[in-house]
Amino acid sequence: MTALSAEGRNGNYPGKGIGQPVGVAVLGMGTVGTEVLRLINEFSGSLENRIGGPIDVRGVAVSDLSKKREVLEKFPDITLTDNARELIDRDDIDVVVEVIGGIDYPRELVLAALNAGKSVVTANKALIAAHADELSDAANAAGVDLYYEAAVAAAIPVVGMLRRSLAGDQVQRISGIVNGTTNFVLDAMASTGASYEEALAEATRLGYAEADPTADVEGHDAASKAAIMASMGFHSRVTYDDVHAEGITNITADDIAAAAEAGFTIKLLAICERLIDDVGNTSVSARVHPTLVPNDHPLATVDKSYNAVFVEAEAAGRLMFYGNGAGGAPTASAVLGDLVGAARNKILGGRAPAENPYAHYPVADFGDVPTRYHIDMSVVDRAGVLAEISRRFAAQDISISAVRQEESGEHSRLIVVTHQSLERKLAAIVDELRDIDEVKSINSVIRLGA
Amino acid sequence: MTALSAEGRNGNYPGKGIGQPVGVAVLGMGTVGTEVLRLINEFSGSLENRIGGPIDVRGVAVSDLSKKREVLEKFPDITLTDNARELIDRDDIDVVVEVIGGIDYPRELVLAALNAGKSVVTANKALIAAHADELSDAANAAGVDLYYEAAVAAAIPVVGMLRRSLAGDQVQRISGIVNGTTNFVLDAMASTGASYEEALAEATRLGYAEADPTADVEGHDAASKAAIMASMGFHSRVTYDDVHAEGITNITADDIAAAAEAGFTIKLLAICERLIDDVGNTSVSARVHPTLVPNDHPLATVDKSYNAVFVEAEAAGRLMFYGNGAGGAPTASAVLGDLVGAARNKILGGRAPAENPYAHYPVADFGDVPTRYHIDMSVVDRAGVLAEISRRFAAQDISISAVRQEESGEHSRLIVVTHQSLERKLAAIVDELRDIDEVKSINSVIRLGA
Repeated sequence: MTALSAEGRNGNYPGKGIGQPVGVAVLGMGTVGTEVLRLINEFSGSLENRIGGPIDVRGVAVSDLSKKREVLEKFPDITLTDNARELIDRDDIDVVVEVIGGIDYPRELVLAALNAGKSVVTANKALIAAHADELSDAANAAGVDLYYEAAVAAAIPVVGMLRRSLAGDQVQRISGIVNGTTNFVLDAMASTGASYEEALAEATRLGYAEADPTADVEGHDAASKAAIMASMGFHSRVTYDDVHAEGITNITADDIAAAAEAGFTIKLLAICERLIDDVGNTSVSARVHPTLVPNDHPLATVDKSYNAVFVEAEAAGRLMFYGNGAGGAPTASAVLGDLVGAARNKILGGRAPAENPYAHYPVADFGDVPTRYHIDMSVVDRAGVLAEISRRFAAQDISISAVRQEESGEHSRLIVVTHQSLERKLAAIVDELRDIDEVKSINSVIRLGA
Repeated sequence: MTALSAEGRNGNYPGKGIGQPVGVAVLGMGTVGTEVLRLINEFSGSLENRIGGPIDVRGVAVSDLSKKREVLEKFPDITLTDNARELIDRDDIDVVVEVIGGIDYPRELVLAALNAGKSVVTANKALIAAHADELSDAANAAGVDLYYEAAVAAAIPVVGMLRRSLAGDQVQRISGIVNGTTNFVLDAMASTGASYEEALAEATRLGYAEADPTADVEGHDAASKAAIMASMGFHSRVTYDDVHAEGITNITADDIAAAAEAGFTIKLLAICERLIDDVGNTSVSARVHPTLVPNDHPLATVDKSYNAVFVEAEAAGRLMFYGNGAGGAPTASAVLGDLVGAARNKILGGRAPAENPYAHYPVADFGDVPTRYHIDMSVVDRAGVLAEISRRFAAQDISISAVRQEESGEHSRLIVVTHQSLERKLAAIVDELRDIDEVKSINSVIRLGA
């Protein structure tokens, strides 16, 4: 018996037949929903050829019925409603596109749609990262599709690549820049010398950061994407709560300058890893934190609000995917690609590969994750300090990769870069250093390695 | 009626059911076939979970039965035969993996397999680029899958991205480095100053070039890939014969040095474009030629034998994919991803999106393709030469973007970079320049623009 038998079907997902229209409901008409409708209208002929029958948008749910929405002029016969539930329950809706955002309300709607036998396409990373288990179970029980390519890095086909292209391989590691706002801010700091606050203000002014940028700058958005990538890549359940997330709010212009001097660029990375411990047990890790990326690594050169994802697989080796990770049109492109897949299955029968956490690897405690630290501290300027600090690292069995010492006023600035060790041991040595007389202050601690 | 109705089915592709084994025949045991078998054995548990039933390799066809093949020890019950046809005809074979290479013989085998209702996975770019129409028709008539991700850039999921991820978008342009051998040679020339012959010898020594490198260095291999990418990206039929292909055999160390001085890197690009003429008619172009790529373009930094493909789509914007474009393991990874897809459809029912040339755009004549020329010539060293040459360009309505003139012995070296014009007009002006007294020699003509 395989994990797929949980699908409750036995190889029989018949379609409605070539030429039949596919009834679609779109929930939400923000930037993405509007763009989805615009593209469905613009590409209607090619979509029909690719699907085997026409896309028939039969209803759109919005929260504010009074708002003027130009694109709807192209869809004169649709139902415009503020009652999404009613739309979902209609018999002539085959596929539901959810682009509302949030968690609780869309969860209720997506579950209702799946339970009613409708396939669902969603761009909602927070929803999938929190409730993939429940939603997958519902899709499997109903024998319908649940697609969410747009939830990770918009038009960059990260989900499809993990779901299909690497289906015959074993993914070892995924690391990527999956949040455009923070990449814009860090890139602006690096290229102009601006402070975090200045760069964020510029990002807000240009529309790259939302009015409340918390979800982006604190790493929450990237954490959702890390959970989804780890779940798909390692065939194990990793949720948002399993992801250790640190944002970029503590990164200073000094940190960026020091990194540049040492040949690194600071990027907010989502890192998903398969770990094997000393006795051969496998676990998985998903984390988000600012990271010193060597300048010759392809991720270091990803500028502006672009996203890029690196994947290492046993047979495929290293792959990188690069593109627009956000924005109305790129997100809508991913939604439409999924819609074609879901609609095609409604016509021709069959199901897309469902998320399948058959491997059931546990999520490693963050303290057990191997990493490297770049520690920037101010130390008293006298002989023997480096010897004392080195002795402390050695006593904790942490190997030092490089040390740089600079005069800086009355104190010396000392930068220590470690070799790989466990997160908990590295965090402990930093705590220890804070307490010794020779160290006046720990200026920054940033992890290293893409 | 849509193009899919040619499939001859009406939305009913039932599967054999969860838990049933999928019988597989592997044709060919070269580097790729051997690696495919190794990975099927290594990943058997995870493959079963992803597919819904076990992969059962029931037969392997080879040309030389006497050769010792270690990996077969892992498959004690299989049929090893030199009669591929017999294997294909067996009732217990559901999916045929073709990794023989060549065109006529695999064509016969793949057709026989499709006609017998077996799905086919192939890594054979030459076969697909020459016979996609015939093979697609056979797959459609039988209602089975024909997959060939490994035919373009090995583990980089270019085919899947065009087939599925961008299914809701409109691809405008694809440009890529899709031949590892030529990229290795050009990169070696650029980084060491070596001549073409020296760099090719080094590539051969290191195993990046075959004993007979013709198909690679003359651009034939890249042309097959261009035909496949253009067909999938533009939903039109583009075959190998439709692709204008120029190789790298005329590129000199001087060309590379001059390019570097002007801020360019010479790459062998496969370029697929959607063109719209003055009266609004659409055509498509697929071509392969050495190209001056600006150093700040991501394709310029693709080194060694790596491949990378750039895609521009209307909604998605610019996407790039990078990775190993050749080699046993990366190619086998792509074959296995396809095998999982084909096997899954055999178990659960349904079909993968078939290639669908519904748009029927004609292939543009190469002379009608817009491009830019970088012309390096030796001219007599006297006043008025530049004026005369400029006049000739203006008379042909070709606009000049930049001119660089250098003393070089008794003659001047003159480099002219044009703005975009039609290939036929640019080729004509070069012919004209060859015949005028002021031009002593045309040293090189290289197209520009990634």
